[in-house]
Amino acid sequence: MARVTHDELVFLPLGGSGEIGMNFNAYGYGPPHDRQWIIVDCGVLFGREGNTPGVDLLMPDIRYLVERRENVLAIIATHAHEDHIGAIAPLWPSLRCPVYATPFTARLIAGKLEEAGLSSKVKVKEVPVGGKLTLGPFELDFISITHSILEPNLLAIRTPLGVVAHTGDWKIDPDPMLGEATDTAALEKLGDEGVLALVCDSTNALVPGSSGSEAKVRESLTELIGTLKGRVAVTGFASNVARLDTVARAAKAHGRRVALVGRSMQKMVSAARETGYLKDFPQVLDETDVADMPAHKVLYLCTGSQGEPRAALARIANGSHPHVALAEGDTVIFSSRVIPGNELAIAEIQNQLAARGIALLTAEDHFVHVSGHPCRDELTQMYRWIRPKLALPVHGEMRHQVSHAKLARSLQVPQAMVPENGQMFRLAPGRPELIDEVPSGRIHMDGRILVGEGEGLSKGRRAMAFAGLLVVALVVDQKGRIAAPPVVLGEGMPEPVEDAVLKAVEETLDKNKRSDIDDLAENVRRAARRAAHDAWGKKPVTRVLVSEI
Amino acid sequence: MARVTHDELVFLPLGGSGEIGMNFNAYGYGPPHDRQWIIVDCGVLFGREGNTPGVDLLMPDIRYLVERRENVLAIIATHAHEDHIGAIAPLWPSLRCPVYATPFTARLIAGKLEEAGLSSKVKVKEVPVGGKLTLGPFELDFISITHSILEPNLLAIRTPLGVVAHTGDWKIDPDPMLGEATDTAALEKLGDEGVLALVCDSTNALVPGSSGSEAKVRESLTELIGTLKGRVAVTGFASNVARLDTVARAAKAHGRRVALVGRSMQKMVSAARETGYLKDFPQVLDETDVADMPAHKVLYLCTGSQGEPRAALARIANGSHPHVALAEGDTVIFSSRVIPGNELAIAEIQNQLAARGIALLTAEDHFVHVSGHPCRDELTQMYRWIRPKLALPVHGEMRHQVSHAKLARSLQVPQAMVPENGQMFRLAPGRPELIDEVPSGRIHMDGRILVGEGEGLSKGRRAMAFAGLLVVALVVDQKGRIAAPPVVLGEGMPEPVEDAVLKAVEETLDKNKRSDIDDLAENVRRAARRAAHDAWGKKPVTRVLVSEI
Repeated sequence: MARVTHDELVFLPLGGSGEIGMNFNAYGYGPPHDRQWIIVDCGVLFGREGNTPGVDLLMPDIRYLVERRENVLAIIATHAHEDHIGAIAPLWPSLRCPVYATPFTARLIAGKLEEAGLSSKVKVKEVPVGGKLTLGPFELDFISITHSILEPNLLAIRTPLGVVAHTGDWKIDPDPMLGEATDTAALEKLGDEGVLALVCDSTNALVPGSSGSEAKVRESLTELIGTLKGRVAVTGFASNVARLDTVARAAKAHGRRVALVGRSMQKMVSAARETGYLKDFPQVLDETDVADMPAHKVLYLCTGSQGEPRAALARIANGSHPHVALAEGDTVIFSSRVIPGNELAIAEIQNQLAARGIALLTAEDHFVHVSGHPCRDELTQMYRWIRPKLALPVHGEMRHQVSHAKLARSLQVPQAMVPENGQMFRLAPGRPELIDEVPSGRIHMDGRILVGEGEGLSKGRRAMAFAGLLVVALVVDQKGRIAAPPVVLGEGMPEPVEDAVLKAVEETLDKNKRSDIDDLAENVRRAARRAAHDAWGKKPVTRVLVSEI
Repeated sequence: MARVTHDELVFLPLGGSGEIGMNFNAYGYGPPHDRQWIIVDCGVLFGREGNTPGVDLLMPDIRYLVERRENVLAIIATHAHEDHIGAIAPLWPSLRCPVYATPFTARLIAGKLEEAGLSSKVKVKEVPVGGKLTLGPFELDFISITHSILEPNLLAIRTPLGVVAHTGDWKIDPDPMLGEATDTAALEKLGDEGVLALVCDSTNALVPGSSGSEAKVRESLTELIGTLKGRVAVTGFASNVARLDTVARAAKAHGRRVALVGRSMQKMVSAARETGYLKDFPQVLDETDVADMPAHKVLYLCTGSQGEPRAALARIANGSHPHVALAEGDTVIFSSRVIPGNELAIAEIQNQLAARGIALLTAEDHFVHVSGHPCRDELTQMYRWIRPKLALPVHGEMRHQVSHAKLARSLQVPQAMVPENGQMFRLAPGRPELIDEVPSGRIHMDGRILVGEGEGLSKGRRAMAFAGLLVVALVVDQKGRIAAPPVVLGEGMPEPVEDAVLKAVEETLDKNKRSDIDDLAENVRRAARRAAHDAWGKKPVTRVLVSEI
């Protein structure tokens, strides 16, 4: 095969395909040996104790682009959710490229860069809402759409070989209450232009119908809050600024003062105000100021809707919050959905609240939330506007992506491919196809250290969580003879296991007096592990430490 | 206060209040110093990696009754679900009392006792369906109700001081398809008699309406399976024998042969047949027999609907099942609900199936399942039948129990109390009240060893999952002087942490040459832990092992 020397447009997702979170998509332009790259979104995934214990954040393994970082023109953020911007600060030092975003998003990224001590090294460049950006061969239009945060953007990515529409996260909210409405004229015009590929959110591809409008939530929440008597606490996603506004207005309508509880509530309201939103948001009080007000005059807006153990609501629920105390007759409204995996943590908090006589209102029983992602009718509408030659469903687990691709085909999109992280697709020239697989995977933020998933640290700890750690300490003299009684530590094991292991180790030492020390240590390791298994039924990770006197 | 010498009737839940699972309820009769006890249900809760890593099963801590075991007359099982019978075999050796159940339940308990090597010591005593049982001062009527398993029973527990109705798990299924219908006449008669207390299932107390009928699922599944072309696999709860029958009949109606895949499917079908059910269940084939049959002639009934990693469906999904292979054009029906906490495990399997082009049909998108627990309309009906003086909601988390109690009050039940495990309530004579709190809690089946939750083994392993285990091995001579270079093991930590710890340990040893060995070890432990924290940001569990030469 002859070496390709002409320009190509390629798409390379390194995160967000096969998972909801950790979005990271790259577009390359140029001949294969000298492509220029832009990165669209650079997000995190939150770790889970069951899968990745001790890991708070997961990020994409982007070594492929790091090796080509002189050709990486920029990171562009579509919007400010953590799964789209959360990895910028941790990964920026290995990329060292410019960062672009619209003002509200830029403000939040700048805050994260500052926390990471990077603000002197990188200034986030602001693109106006509805603005344009030229980066080498790429010309980008920021087209306003709607989502569950301020300033979500669909990017029209123009290149000499054609246009790609990259949706970011979106829904069609005819009445988003805050920020721009969907620029349907721009989307339709983009479709008229002819679009090579639509790279599109798959989160709700299994959900029929439409996600619904924030305006309806406003009506419903306002009415609901009007029926409540005691203190009211509303919890939800702090980044959903329109929702915060909705709740604050509902509070005001019923004579309640609003207190923000939780750092991210305060951070989001500040960021929105500093970028020109929430101009008539009611003056919020400090949580200490409202403590002595009559119950029916108070509304708390709290973090912690996902059961996060350190967030405001968890502390209110277990009675450990320093300033906020709820009691019988008060109400907590969960104006949010349950992110899969958080069911039990949320239930625990709800049980604690219920045990104290606090009423719970949730999306299960009241209309207090709408999703920020497109359901099937909205996806259908987007395909009608854009009419791409190719559908590339991203931002979903496999079953969402597969269902999304099927839906696109049913809408007469000529081609639909389900990308996986690390797969490189040539979008032009010619019929799009998978042309390469590059290294990909996940990086763990383990404590303060970035560790490749492949190093297996978290996996090893998970093995310890299952069966503990068995350690045998041996002492040998310079001739390699055992010089002290063995010491056994069976961490995380019932006591009889340690006793059984010590006996087995002693027997092994007796039987192998003449062995080479490495062989002896290995024999001891095996005997110890076997003895633990016989006594307990589990095979612990087993280590032998040899001290030489 | 004078010593009570007259007879009292008391209720003591030791499991199942505050949790869905691990049901264990005791009723006592007699004067406080000499009560006689019966135990109603003795179940397990399944462990979760995030909360109790390495623990498959949790059981109630029943030390209070073990100390009084000469006065424990019997364990009575209402029905055969694991959360009602799963702890009988593990806990029987500490109780050594008779066990009673109706035939199908008795058959399954006997199988568990046999697996535990106890069949020579205890024979389960059969009570006929609709039968009676006298145990000391207690007279029990087994009243047939409906649930998602064969032979569920409500127990009418008669004593000289009055009658308690203990529902076990139930719903009102007008057409359960297999086994007895709800004996509504008996329930109404019981209500006419006058009932002190209704001890009742709270699982669905937050769900409006009714749970629905198995007959409707049969219609829907039969129609649905008729529309499918390739191989069909249906997964669900093996213990739902009526559902297995439904699926088998639907298969037959559409010319498909049924193969049972997974040990518990086979076990349940055998138990049902041996006790007189499933007389015209189609002849099932072995999974190897159907492998070569045309796809549209095959239906697999599989275990694994909750994402259990070792069950049939997980192995089919990841392509590792020895005999069952599904492919594009085939369909998997999840004829089940998602038990909270299993969302991610199920999603993983569904993603694997979707990635291979296998269609997924679930209760989210098709009518393929009904719950086995009473929704609010059914609870209302039960209170109308029984008309108890007291509602004692059990079998639920706190928010379900609280909501259930509130519903009971709204139905004019004069008194409703939400019991917690370990709380003893006097039901008669006089107005019911909480009279005592006895030791309660959970026991872990950790490997093969029963361990009290309070011993903290699993919790300790969870700490290791978060931050690993740091071990420092020191060697001292007989004068207490360090006799070998220290050895450091940082299990589950990034390499730089181990290096930093070794350096800190060496410095500590240099500085503390004259210390007493216990002080030295403690100084080393602290220095090591601090060094790990400085290098990594986490504080690992740290142990110092001292060998003496």
